Amino acid sequence: MAFDRFQDFLGSLVKGQRRGFFSGNGRPSIDELLDKLMGNTGEVSAIVAARELLDDYIKSDDDAKLAFFNNLEQNYNADEVAVKLAYNSYSSDPSSTNLNRLSKTAEPRRLNLLRRLNQTPGATHDLVEMRSDLLKLLKDNPQLRAVDDNFVRLFKSWFARSFLVLQTIDWSTPAAILERIIRYEAVHEIKDWEDLRRRIQPANRRCFAFFHPALTDEPLIFVEVALGWEIPNSINSILTDTKAEDIEATDFTTATFYSISNCQPGLQHISFGNFLIKQVVLGLQAEFPSIKQFVTLSPISGFKRWLQSTPEDEASEITASKARIQQIENTPEAIEENAQLIEQLVFNYLLSAKKGKYPADSVARFHLGNGAMIHQLHTAADTSEKGLAQAHGTMVNYLYDLRYIERNHERYVTEGTVEYNDKLKPLVIKP
Amino acid sequence: MAFDRFQDFLGSLVKGQRRGFFSGNGRPSIDELLDKLMGNTGEVSAIVAARELLDDYIKSDDDAKLAFFNNLEQNYNADEVAVKLAYNSYSSDPSSTNLNRLSKTAEPRRLNLLRRLNQTPGATHDLVEMRSDLLKLLKDNPQLRAVDDNFVRLFKSWFARSFLVLQTIDWSTPAAILERIIRYEAVHEIKDWEDLRRRIQPANRRCFAFFHPALTDEPLIFVEVALGWEIPNSINSILTDTKAEDIEATDFTTATFYSISNCQPGLQHISFGNFLIKQVVLGLQAEFPSIKQFVTLSPISGFKRWLQSTPEDEASEITASKARIQQIENTPEAIEENAQLIEQLVFNYLLSAKKGKYPADSVARFHLGNGAMIHQLHTAADTSEKGLAQAHGTMVNYLYDLRYIERNHERYVTEGTVEYNDKLKPLVIKP
Amino acid sequence: MAFDRFQDFLGSLVKGQRRGFFSGNGRPSIDELLDKLMGNTGEVSAIVAARELLDDYIKSDDDAKLAFFNNLEQNYNADEVAVKLAYNSYSSDPSSTNLNRLSKTAEPRRLNLLRRLNQTPGATHDLVEMRSDLLKLLKDNPQLRAVDDNFVRLFKSWFARSFLVLQTIDWSTPAAILERIIRYEAVHEIKDWEDLRRRIQPANRRCFAFFHPALTDEPLIFVEVALGWEIPNSINSILTDTKAEDIEATDFTTATFYSISNCQPGLQHISFGNFLIKQVVLGLQAEFPSIKQFVTLSPISGFKRWLQSTPEDEASEITASKARIQQIENTPEAIEENAQLIEQLVFNYLLSAKKGKYPADSVARFHLGNGAMIHQLHTAADTSEKGLAQAHGTMVNYLYDLRYIERNHERYVTEGTVEYNDKLKPLVIKP
Amino acid sequence: MAFDRFQDFLGSLVKGQRRGFFSGNGRPSIDELLDKLMGNTGEVSAIVAARELLDDYIKSDDDAKLAFFNNLEQNYNADEVAVKLAYNSYSSDPSSTNLNRLSKTAEPRRLNLLRRLNQTPGATHDLVEMRSDLLKLLKDNPQLRAVDDNFVRLFKSWFARSFLVLQTIDWSTPAAILERIIRYEAVHEIKDWEDLRRRIQPANRRCFAFFHPALTDEPLIFVEVALGWEIPNSINSILTDTKAEDIEATDFTTATFYSISNCQPGLQHISFGNFLIKQVVLGLQAEFPSIKQFVTLSPISGFKRWLQSTPEDEASEITASKARIQQIENTPEAIEENAQLIEQLVFNYLLSAKKGKYPADSVARFHLGNGAMIHQLHTAADTSEKGLAQAHGTMVNYLYDLRYIERNHERYVTEGTVEYNDKLKPLVIKP
Repeated sequence: MAFDRFQDFLGSLVKGQRRGFFSGNGRPSIDELLDKLMGNTGEVSAIVAARELLDDYIKSDDDAKLAFFNNLEQNYNADEVAVKLAYNSYSSDPSSTNLNRLSKTAEPRRLNLLRRLNQTPGATHDLVEMRSDLLKLLKDNPQLRAVDDNFVRLFKSWFARSFLVLQTIDWSTPAAILERIIRYEAVHEIKDWEDLRRRIQPANRRCFAFFHPALTDEPLIFVEVALGWEIPNSINSILTDTKAEDIEATDFTTATFYSISNCQPGLQHISFGNFLIKQVVLGLQAEFPSIKQFVTLSPISGFKRWLQSTPEDEASEITASKARIQQIENTPEAIEENAQLIEQLVFNYLLSAKKGKYPADSVARFHLGNGAMIHQLHTAADTSEKGLAQAHGTMVNYLYDLRYIERNHERYVTEGTVEYNDKLKPLVIKP
Repeated sequence: MAFDRFQDFLGSLVKGQRRGFFSGNGRPSIDELLDKLMGNTGEVSAIVAARELLDDYIKSDDDAKLAFFNNLEQNYNADEVAVKLAYNSYSSDPSSTNLNRLSKTAEPRRLNLLRRLNQTPGATHDLVEMRSDLLKLLKDNPQLRAVDDNFVRLFKSWFARSFLVLQTIDWSTPAAILERIIRYEAVHEIKDWEDLRRRIQPANRRCFAFFHPALTDEPLIFVEVALGWEIPNSINSILTDTKAEDIEATDFTTATFYSISNCQPGLQHISFGNFLIKQVVLGLQAEFPSIKQFVTLSPISGFKRWLQSTPEDEASEITASKARIQQIENTPEAIEENAQLIEQLVFNYLLSAKKGKYPADSVARFHLGNGAMIHQLHTAADTSEKGLAQAHGTMVNYLYDLRYIERNHERYVTEGTVEYNDKLKPLVIKP
Repeated sequence: MAFDRFQDFLGSLVKGQRRGFFSGNGRPSIDELLDKLMGNTGEVSAIVAARELLDDYIKSDDDAKLAFFNNLEQNYNADEVAVKLAYNSYSSDPSSTNLNRLSKTAEPRRLNLLRRLNQTPGATHDLVEMRSDLLKLLKDNPQLRAVDDNFVRLFKSWFARSFLVLQTIDWSTPAAILERIIRYEAVHEIKDWEDLRRRIQPANRRCFAFFHPALTDEPLIFVEVALGWEIPNSINSILTDTKAEDIEATDFTTATFYSISNCQPGLQHISFGNFLIKQVVLGLQAEFPSIKQFVTLSPISGFKRWLQSTPEDEASEITASKARIQQIENTPEAIEENAQLIEQLVFNYLLSAKKGKYPADSVARFHLGNGAMIHQLHTAADTSEKGLAQAHGTMVNYLYDLRYIERNHERYVTEGTVEYNDKLKPLVIKP
Repeated sequence: MAFDRFQDFLGSLVKGQRRGFFSGNGRPSIDELLDKLMGNTGEVSAIVAARELLDDYIKSDDDAKLAFFNNLEQNYNADEVAVKLAYNSYSSDPSSTNLNRLSKTAEPRRLNLLRRLNQTPGATHDLVEMRSDLLKLLKDNPQLRAVDDNFVRLFKSWFARSFLVLQTIDWSTPAAILERIIRYEAVHEIKDWEDLRRRIQPANRRCFAFFHPALTDEPLIFVEVALGWEIPNSINSILTDTKAEDIEATDFTTATFYSISNCQPGLQHISFGNFLIKQVVLGLQAEFPSIKQFVTLSPISGFKRWLQSTPEDEASEITASKARIQQIENTPEAIEENAQLIEQLVFNYLLSAKKGKYPADSVARFHLGNGAMIHQLHTAADTSEKGLAQAHGTMVNYLYDLRYIERNHERYVTEGTVEYNDKLKPLVIKP
């Protein structure tokens, strides 16, 4: 029933107005458009200016984009005098009203500028792309971090979880969306449409994605799930399972999350994954009451770097193990022979390699921070080039046990505690 | 394809967790829930607390609601010391970074509280209801205006125009939505379903509404339109046109917006109407290239009050006319006899009665502010009790001419200029 | 994704062609259109002729319609000579090929005529209406029964069960469909939209309908269901249950089918109800595994007529009971006082009043023929005027027990056996 | 709103019943199932038997399938005595009623058998597959043609045009459907998903398909269209047009139908293409009023065979041309050098090669029979291996001019007239 064409109509309005609007005086510069946008012009003019500006921005080269962001950083702050006055009032009477006024006065004008840009059709998508550009510029232009902070502030509000829609991705999903799933898969590459079909069509495979109503056809994040009767001990057994299609069972006992991919670089640090997994766990539990075990099958992306480092305070047993492993050939055969040693070292990497009080491994940080726990390790589980390079082919299951995720999460946040299955205890190397 | 049931699943999670979560210590108070919500608990706990809090709020009586809002006003401001420090940094170095920090520090914690509440399913709807309660309390509790300011700030962001969806409302619309159209119609009451059908099913009637993806089945605002070949001179001819159903024409020349209703009291001052009309004009223009005239048929709601007042600087001719009109019986017959006099006085009311530099009449303010102009007046156009009481039955057409709305809007905003059709010039009473 | 507008486009083609097509020679008569339709003209011409013919038919008065049907009866039979030849071939060699040829040759041309009419958009709907007219004419024009036979033959094929779609009717159903549900309800009148809402929105009420893809928005048959924990003993308790809306339970044990309405008079004798009930039973069983009992709450529509008759071979006890009941005042109070007597007589009516070997009561024939059995009787269950008039307010539950419906159905078909609950045995009056 | 799951529920019923139903006596044979199906069993039993039978049929090997069809041919004819009696009645009184009776009595029982099979969910799909098998057996088993006749008779009724739905196929179409478009393309192979995308996503490419509501996700026939400003002179320029994606124009003047594929072998001779093209012409005309020319770009599939034949009465000039062409190397270069000669011969092939009074070329028969005319020829238009082999790379445009298609169609049907563009006249070789 949605009257989609109105979006097009608005598009034509904007185009129509644009021609008329600027007809007298040639094409305005981005700066003129910014003035127009932030001025007291009528609403349609502002929309036209916003659209024009976004279109111009998209066509700009890197230098022009940098100049645009620098302009935002330098010229869209606040009125210092007004801030001073607002602060003085607040300082002498810290009432709610005075605080509100100070808060508004001290708000960088950049925020309002981005909000106004977002009043034109399709703008949300363009702004997410814009931030993607900005993130690339940050390294060489640290001053732009202030601009990025403002993007983040708005995006957190615009992508509030209550606005997100969870959808199943399957073989009846429009090709326009599936095409993006192929493109955005970041963990285990989807080679082609046939490969995709194997991951979403069989009765023992599932895929779920979050969407935002303003980003048509654009998934924000998606997770791929394999259903079965035991925890798979290798990623290959999932990706190349050609018998999957014949399965008609509904009495699965285990769900394995084997791939989670963020789709929008421009939404970095706006976290969706935490919630996605929990929502999918609940959904699967409702559909398959027989599923009792929800685990990931995750890569151990930071192991290699850790292996090659030697922190001062490292337990000597670990240092020794590292040396031994580095002498082992990185082939499936050699790995199998030394499985026990590798497993132990990888586990101790997850336990002891830290960034602050939290694990150094980014995937571990994500799942443990969500309240999951380390459940099991599998050597020779990913013998692809990438898998061998990352962690000598080892993979790990993080277990999502709804009964404990809150407790685990709180311990993790406050203490940095890494919960793990008791069976793994013998592997711990004490410092 | 939307996986709607997940919302239900999440609902059951929240219910499940709730029981377990608080099982040890009885039912927590709203204040305890607020602490839980704002603390460093895990995400699921926060969602549970938010849901619990919203449910408790809904069941609260007026006193408890007032106490809740007072709590927000008094205890969810900012950390004064932190604000002072942030201001000092900014004051000595007004960099973007320092401004960002000040802006964040000076943000009332209420904003964050409302954002966190909005992380639980269905919360947006509950928060809109919450503000509806708040608005009723404002008159007797002016201190809560600070809280309302924060609601408005968030709602402007959450109901950004790029997130809204325009839908046609017709006889194939789900009953759950139509039921609300009946309930929310605020200008010309919809008596029953048959009355509704007459307004949305015939080929010469249209209805359009804005929806927000997070408010299922809840229109935000809607407009009713009559299509034809001339400007209707009475609202009755629109509402009781029983021949409408036989019309199959598509060569209409005139679209009349005869009713615009805001649906959500909790979204007061979050304006949608301006844009709705323009978008509908564009849509109709694309569907019916033959339509050349877009007008409203609007009530003149403030005339009666103005009639009974006598401002000091009023033109003596106006004062005299007022006196004459007040002696006329307020019946269709008497009105028809004195049509010219009434028309003139109503027109001069629209021109000269002011609130600041803008018209005193709220409907006039809305349409003129949108860039429309006064096009024509019709006496005896609404002879319902309400119509007679408001303006002796007179109604007015505001004309939306896309070529001039930007110009009109700018003149109106800057000068308060009220544009009108040249043909009306002879009616002007000079002061 | 359906390209609905093409239907409109075709409509315009037909309109466009029509003008051009017949431009030279004025408006053709229905007979000329029939020739055009059955001739060797091109496809578009045939579609145009079909559409024109149907439009003309619709506007015809009763006499013209009768003439049209008489024309079909008299002039659209078969080529007698060809039939003779085909029969002779078959007679001398009854091969499959010869049978096929005879079968085609002996097919009345009416069938082909109706098939050709059905090639134009919207024709199915018009043909169902056409048969509805035909049925009214049958009584006074028994010769048209042959035409009706041909309609039935085609409709059975066009409304094959595998083409039907079952849909839930609830408060999110388009108003255009709900309006028809109100109109078509034939058992317990739906007074207005509020009455409808009470039947489809609460969690313990359900409504299901069969649709055919070619009849847009037109239900073929629908059934209304009340869910609860016991068999309701009065229809009033279902229709006016104002607490229904508060029920959130999902542990219902009993589903009561309290109204089944055929919607299309033109589809008389094309039976859908049998299958509808069974499909709904299966659906509800899957959604609510706790439901163990599926019953109807049905009127006893033929009791009154039977009461007033005295068949020759009637058991004297029955004749005596009849006399006693007829002396009882037909008021709820009097009925309650004589409940036992009424219950017994009604039950024996269902058992012994026959039309051939089957029950005389049409509702009983329907449910018993489906394999249901008489489960329980309720006196004073429908104290509406209609209910009192039909069976002194008595209603009956037919029980659908999936384990036995096949067995019951077969016994009913072959022997006319009426199955009933053992508890009712004491009520039986032996002849 | 469709209650899809009911199909599943019914599925489970059938499975459930099946087990119980036949539990006592082992698995029934197909013949026993046929008896069950045609007997007086209850409805659910019949559905169960139908489903069981279809499942068994699908798993059968070729011999068993042949036996099944032979059984249908031999044992599901009519009751000879009853036919004789019915004929005698008709013969003595050829009334409508007697004709109806004869028609029913003489109907092969096979028809009823197929109709009963079609009462179980999914049966339509299985029956279409069944006929596909049957068609393969016809050549060696001509007696089965009688069975095929009955399939055709039913399918014509079941796939009545008023039941078909036209849908656009584009990049938002579910993958499950697109996958079939790739598979079913019969004219110019779709190599992979990227190739498909190029044909359906760009603004100057369109694809439309007919669907039947009972065949989920299964297109019946589809047509691919290229929009532009002139008639393309080679298929390659359409298939490899990489600039297509940049086109935003809407002022196209020419629509070229460059591929039409039937999807269901089991629906052979149930014609959809005729109507598809006309409906698409109308739809495109409504969307793009600027399009004035609707042409095909079609292969000339029978030219090669004709080239190698020498009919007795062939014009000597043609025989000579044939000889010359056969000496030309079949390469693009050689073809270009002899373009005039090839063009002339191909044109005269289309004109003079006959099968009865109609053209020998099957593609020509299709389009000319639809009322199109030969518009233009293009040598070296399809230099693929297939294109060179078929007609030395020549292709032809058939023009659909709505003003003349009826006239052309009638002339073609009655006289076999092949209409062509006047400009081609000089190419005609008189016999």
